[in-house]
Amino acid sequence: MATSKLQTELLYPDLEAALEAADLEGLKEICDTVAAEDLAEMVGRLGDLNRAVFFEKVSEDKATEIFQLLEVAVQKDVIEAVSNQRVAAIINEMDPDNRTALLESLPSNSTRQLLSFLKPRERKQAQRLLDFPKDSVGRLMTPDFLAIKLEWNVERVLDFIRRNGEDKETLNDIYVVDDRGRLLDDIGIRELLLAPPEKDIQDIMDRQFTALPANAPEEEAIQAFKKYSRRTALPVTDEEGYLLGIVTIDDVMDLAEKETTEDIHKLGGVGALEEPYLALPMSQMIKKRGGWLTVLFIGEMLTATAMSFFEQEISRAVVLALFIPLIISSGGNSGSQAASLVIRAIALNEVSLKDWWTVFRREILLGLILGGGLGLIGLLRVIVASRFTNTYGDHWFLVALTVYFSLIGVVAWGTLIGALFPLILKRLGADPAASSAPFVATFIDVTGIVIYFNIALLLLSGKLL
Amino acid sequence: MATSKLQTELLYPDLEAALEAADLEGLKEICDTVAAEDLAEMVGRLGDLNRAVFFEKVSEDKATEIFQLLEVAVQKDVIEAVSNQRVAAIINEMDPDNRTALLESLPSNSTRQLLSFLKPRERKQAQRLLDFPKDSVGRLMTPDFLAIKLEWNVERVLDFIRRNGEDKETLNDIYVVDDRGRLLDDIGIRELLLAPPEKDIQDIMDRQFTALPANAPEEEAIQAFKKYSRRTALPVTDEEGYLLGIVTIDDVMDLAEKETTEDIHKLGGVGALEEPYLALPMSQMIKKRGGWLTVLFIGEMLTATAMSFFEQEISRAVVLALFIPLIISSGGNSGSQAASLVIRAIALNEVSLKDWWTVFRREILLGLILGGGLGLIGLLRVIVASRFTNTYGDHWFLVALTVYFSLIGVVAWGTLIGALFPLILKRLGADPAASSAPFVATFIDVTGIVIYFNIALLLLSGKLL
Repeated sequence: MATSKLQTELLYPDLEAALEAADLEGLKEICDTVAAEDLAEMVGRLGDLNRAVFFEKVSEDKATEIFQLLEVAVQKDVIEAVSNQRVAAIINEMDPDNRTALLESLPSNSTRQLLSFLKPRERKQAQRLLDFPKDSVGRLMTPDFLAIKLEWNVERVLDFIRRNGEDKETLNDIYVVDDRGRLLDDIGIRELLLAPPEKDIQDIMDRQFTALPANAPEEEAIQAFKKYSRRTALPVTDEEGYLLGIVTIDDVMDLAEKETTEDIHKLGGVGALEEPYLALPMSQMIKKRGGWLTVLFIGEMLTATAMSFFEQEISRAVVLALFIPLIISSGGNSGSQAASLVIRAIALNEVSLKDWWTVFRREILLGLILGGGLGLIGLLRVIVASRFTNTYGDHWFLVALTVYFSLIGVVAWGTLIGALFPLILKRLGADPAASSAPFVATFIDVTGIVIYFNIALLLLSGKLL
Repeated sequence: MATSKLQTELLYPDLEAALEAADLEGLKEICDTVAAEDLAEMVGRLGDLNRAVFFEKVSEDKATEIFQLLEVAVQKDVIEAVSNQRVAAIINEMDPDNRTALLESLPSNSTRQLLSFLKPRERKQAQRLLDFPKDSVGRLMTPDFLAIKLEWNVERVLDFIRRNGEDKETLNDIYVVDDRGRLLDDIGIRELLLAPPEKDIQDIMDRQFTALPANAPEEEAIQAFKKYSRRTALPVTDEEGYLLGIVTIDDVMDLAEKETTEDIHKLGGVGALEEPYLALPMSQMIKKRGGWLTVLFIGEMLTATAMSFFEQEISRAVVLALFIPLIISSGGNSGSQAASLVIRAIALNEVSLKDWWTVFRREILLGLILGGGLGLIGLLRVIVASRFTNTYGDHWFLVALTVYFSLIGVVAWGTLIGALFPLILKRLGADPAASSAPFVATFIDVTGIVIYFNIALLLLSGKLL
């Protein structure tokens, strides 16, 4: 079973056939041979009707296991398609952290309905988790962890795990708490497995642990897992150090991926999408894209305004108009480069606000060098073309110089704005990625036109203008 | 010790002071109180000289532990600054996967030198790992895993782990192999901890496992960990199913982050950087950015060529020039949006080649709707402005219509190209992200000018033109 991909491709038609024929034997056989993650992938691809049949017909345990592996968007579809009785069974059995993720994504009346399906203990737990602020560590948390006392020895702990570990989300870490439930240490299962059975827990403890505050933004969980990259779970405490739950790596990885997607979309000038590209309804897509596109369009209308100030100059020297797209787009491109580098560096904590001066110096120098290089190409192009055509008129050399100096100015300006704008946004407490490259480009288009025509006026006054 | 951040901030000056005063006692105390990851973060911030002192003065074990937690770029600096004897001690003790990552990033003569520092067993192992193709799963692998036989029972396995687990990279998964070393199953430590000690391993086995082929591209490892998101290690086998090693999640997370950074940089039109933004030398930065910028510039020069064909029209109706930046940038923006959505969707496996027709239909419809919306704004702007100024002349309504239809055409065209170009690149076996938004925008700038002037000719011939 080296590649599970092949296997799922082969079994998918069998799964569909079994569901359509209501062949319970065949369905059970497929469920027993395929890994849960692969089965979930297949179920995700099924049509709505077949998927509903799947969740009605498999065992409650299997239904819950597979349900939890689906994307929240698909989970919502399943809930609508399946009987209330089945929904109740599934959400009562779900891991508390996955349950929170589902509940918080539903409209409030659906959340209330699902909560009413829960047994008293589960309902109380779900309510408590939903009480944490949206996008906080508390919302990511599961209270299903293993807590031990420091007076125990290794043998007793292993015995405790054997008897109580079944429904815990991870056994990779065990938590030592005091009599009142305050966290004293976390112990990796590795320590327990390597220690002699009679060793006391307090002799294993190093009292070095990193706990996430329940009210902290979820971003902190992502950063912590990046740093402690071999950890699969981290404990969550309240202000007084009471152990409330744990956050597991799978949820944090999903979250990190979602944040990266948001960053990439923002860089492309799209509002963050809540659902996968193909699943998003057209109306949502128009809203997410139309909004930003309109803002950029209205900003870009200033280019027409700026150019109308120079209408006289253009009519006197049409040749100037020819280079406008070239010059402003070069500024835009260099700005996009700088913006995407700095935005990513901020996201990776490689650059922070205090580095602004270093960034400023680097980028202004880079802008001048890159602009000088492009300017030279532009200069040569006009000079060479003037040997063969008369497009650039008698004053071709002055036109060439205008292009040259404009490129230096616009590229240096674009580079600087692109690099500093994300830092300014961060300083203002906004998301640096929201300075999406097209936004910088629009700004540079408008200002680039002003730079270009002013250089032209300077060099060509009395000649062409 | 709820927040380690605070602690490292407080202790950093102490660490610097201890190193400058060569205070070995103080140094040892800091090393003993701070978690390795936090210490590594502090060491990463030290100046070159202090860092060298740190690695010379701490114990070999500590030096190795901290060294492995540093970025490869910093590791290289350390190697140059520290005595050969210390370097030899560290690289002999390193985990094999981290060692490969370091060795493969060095110039070949440095790699040879480091290999010569290794003890025979380590050297052989390192050589074997380096023999796998660059960017393959084999290069990510560590051969330090725990293999057991299916005849054993749980108690024997736990005993085996206690005696042999010390230098293994993870104890979260144990591997069952046959007498010749072929992989039969992987067993999570959870199963072992929950099972009664006398239970036989073969009764725990489900023979369901996912192994990564050693020669597969590393991308496969990233995808596998995303899918099996609760796994912290996956086994690696050769074509015949022999267990060669394991890949652990920390290395794969680093890799995934690196790939995302590359995608974001490519979207911004920058060649992938090998080092963090601030660490990259200017010369490299110029190369990485100048290359693409030049390519885009040369492409964009076609806008001047395209416009020169319409020089007559511009001189007759200068008003047409005013809208060029607005119209082509709207096409560029809608293209960037579509490109970044589709590139990310491909990276997340939400969209594949077989979806091209769905993408095509969606995007052409979206392009027409979005273009229609922007066109309407443009139309209104010209109509309203014409009430107050004479910028748009007598034929202002025809100019308004030209703007309207051009926006619909250019935005629909931009949207379509932006969405399909990444798919075409993927079809050709290239990286979809390499169709970086500015590349699409450049293409649309040039073609947008042609669309605009043709619509103008159609509507304004005999009137303004």
